[in-house]
Amino acid sequence: MSAPTPTPNDLGVGARITVGVMDSDYVRLITEALAATDGTDLDVSSDDVSTLVRGTEQRVTEYLRDLLVPLARSGVHVNAHVMFSRGCPGEVECAVTPGVLRQTEVPALEQSGVQAVAQWSLYPLADDGGDHMREIYAAIDHAKGLGTFIGSEHYVTRLGGDLADVLATVAAGWVLTGHGVQHVTSHAVFSINSPTAKAGS
Amino acid sequence: MSAPTPTPNDLGVGARITVGVMDSDYVRLITEALAATDGTDLDVSSDDVSTLVRGTEQRVTEYLRDLLVPLARSGVHVNAHVMFSRGCPGEVECAVTPGVLRQTEVPALEQSGVQAVAQWSLYPLADDGGDHMREIYAAIDHAKGLGTFIGSEHYVTRLGGDLADVLATVAAGWVLTGHGVQHVTSHAVFSINSPTAKAGS
Repeated sequence: MSAPTPTPNDLGVGARITVGVMDSDYVRLITEALAATDGTDLDVSSDDVSTLVRGTEQRVTEYLRDLLVPLARSGVHVNAHVMFSRGCPGEVECAVTPGVLRQTEVPALEQSGVQAVAQWSLYPLADDGGDHMREIYAAIDHAKGLGTFIGSEHYVTRLGGDLADVLATVAAGWVLTGHGVQHVTSHAVFSINSPTAKAGS
Repeated sequence: MSAPTPTPNDLGVGARITVGVMDSDYVRLITEALAATDGTDLDVSSDDVSTLVRGTEQRVTEYLRDLLVPLARSGVHVNAHVMFSRGCPGEVECAVTPGVLRQTEVPALEQSGVQAVAQWSLYPLADDGGDHMREIYAAIDHAKGLGTFIGSEHYVTRLGGDLADVLATVAAGWVLTGHGVQHVTSHAVFSINSPTAKAGS
């Protein structure tokens, strides 16, 4: 008999998001976006730096999309830092039995109709003498298959396309790497409605 | 005879910064801050997502402080995502001879007179079967010694104090971990002049 699949809480599955809204009316825009986003089946809490979202990979990713899409539709220039984490609930304690993995499907999102670019990084934090770059290459290949890969830059991969597709790419790299590595984080900085247009974005 | 110390460029030492300026006059504020920041001895380039800064650990960290301080002094609510990286220039290529390390002093910064809080994470990406959490604990202990440690939260460590001290804490964890691990990144999200006050911040 195999061990039961750990729950999202067992494995510390979740994300943090920080948005930058380049408008003097930012308090209203952020407050309304947070209030309108469906947190069903999630633990959501905000502080002065970020909003923490915990739950299944699918619901966490949906929450991030649903928070960002109305901000993007406002037409205001918005950036967002998203951090996904698994395998290390808490921080210093990180009390997960070594080797416990959670095999879940890659989150699937309907397209949002708004465009975004992002600079993405992925961190497989394995201590078993593996090759962390191998996991990163696999995730980048996955992004190429999804059509969101734009290019390789110093320290990051540039993604672009529909906001939901870009977010799903980041989530997919994190979930797929988590099939083989317990502690995995991923960071992405999104830029939406930027006045600084760039070729290929 | 020992091998020569690799240069910052040999080892891909640098940072990326993305600022969120919550004001409709953000283009002027960001453009002026970038123009006023001294890039001597650094390679600096901006795109629609972030500004990339490459050079010595000391100069890179000074640049980040000098960019953020005038934005903080404007009184506007500002957040910033900072990513430090070493050991993996480029992205997919990551062409550094394994085991090449750069032993440098921890960056020292004069205080800025402005306060900040940050959520910080550190990633020692070793493939030698080590213990990545050991390096993280050591960096957190270092932060406690500097007086910028506030507490442990899900996935991150909360720092606070003078902006320069918080930034120096993040840089110190990254540099010190780099004495023993080749590929090390660190991410921190700063919040400055937030209307959402928090106890202990």
